[in-house]
Amino acid sequence: MLKLFYTPATCSLASHIALEEAGASYEAHRVDFSKAEQTKPEYLAVNPKGRVPALVTDRGTLTETPAILTYIAQTFPGARLAPNDDPFEFARLQSFLSYLCSTVHVAHAHARRGARWADDPAAHEAMKAKVSKNMADCFALIEGTMFAGPFTMGDTYTIADPYLFTIASWLEGDGVDPAQFPKILDHRNRMAERRAVAKVLDVVRS
Amino acid sequence: MLKLFYTPATCSLASHIALEEAGASYEAHRVDFSKAEQTKPEYLAVNPKGRVPALVTDRGTLTETPAILTYIAQTFPGARLAPNDDPFEFARLQSFLSYLCSTVHVAHAHARRGARWADDPAAHEAMKAKVSKNMADCFALIEGTMFAGPFTMGDTYTIADPYLFTIASWLEGDGVDPAQFPKILDHRNRMAERRAVAKVLDVVRS
Repeated sequence: MLKLFYTPATCSLASHIALEEAGASYEAHRVDFSKAEQTKPEYLAVNPKGRVPALVTDRGTLTETPAILTYIAQTFPGARLAPNDDPFEFARLQSFLSYLCSTVHVAHAHARRGARWADDPAAHEAMKAKVSKNMADCFALIEGTMFAGPFTMGDTYTIADPYLFTIASWLEGDGVDPAQFPKILDHRNRMAERRAVAKVLDVVRS
Repeated sequence: MLKLFYTPATCSLASHIALEEAGASYEAHRVDFSKAEQTKPEYLAVNPKGRVPALVTDRGTLTETPAILTYIAQTFPGARLAPNDDPFEFARLQSFLSYLCSTVHVAHAHARRGARWADDPAAHEAMKAKVSKNMADCFALIEGTMFAGPFTMGDTYTIADPYLFTIASWLEGDGVDPAQFPKILDHRNRMAERRAVAKVLDVVRS
């Protein structure tokens, strides 16, 4: 059975929701960052990167949100979570996932993970000071040119939806008023009403 | 015909090599960062993100290296640049691409693009000071646990190879001695001998 290693309030939420939307059988294992479990040998044996999510399959462990989401979409084709048979639409979806992981998530990470990129506490403060501008710029681009509607990529729900939902849920914490982005806010509200999303949020917040 | 927008000494090299390895017909258009062409309306009409690479196809424009590489691998299946029919191996490949774009490229970018994440020049210096450690840590993980050999993902050449080659070519500039990573250095040397790689490097450096 698939095993998802997750931590509340992290990007692992996207993979968690996708598993639920796919109707997958899986076990969810919590990694407690408050106890630094992600740095312990037991977890590093699962994921040497010391991050979440990690998805353990019968063929090995997968890491990185875009890869896990793609794996779920391709191994549960009946759930139609990605345009697996259309290389252009599939690449357009991958482009969105890649932007979220390499630009938007990275912009967010500078608020609390500045120690990854500098040792000087003053530099951490300088990074933190720019997070709300950067997140607002990213979401302006998504709202203005990338979000197709009614779902992220267009008419069909895909793995981009739980990923956008996850990162959009960080806006207030990053000092950004989501009301500036009406399409994204409406999407976030519609996502929160989905059965799969509500079920995962119940588990993660318990 | 496909059009690739590239800039020398950037990650667009990976997509450029992949097009060549695929035997694709394409035009390569240089975007001159020294003239800030990536910030001009003409280029922003191609890619509103103001970055390279961008791949213009007859169905629209794709951005983000992992997405462009995947598109090339899927639209030129005869070149066998990705395990398109094996969801686990395909996800393992996506995981590698994702790590390169969201962690390794980001680590490198803090050397010269610190202004993305902080306004204080002292913070830029603090970021720059940590780049060689971060790049060495990333490559230690790749060398130790991710690089399968003889190619990046194992026995078969894939789109991960030009991407790793591209980013590994930045090591010396980031103050990292690649001799610490014998598998990656050997891979880089073997890559440089490939006809497609030599041809693209000739174009890019001209």
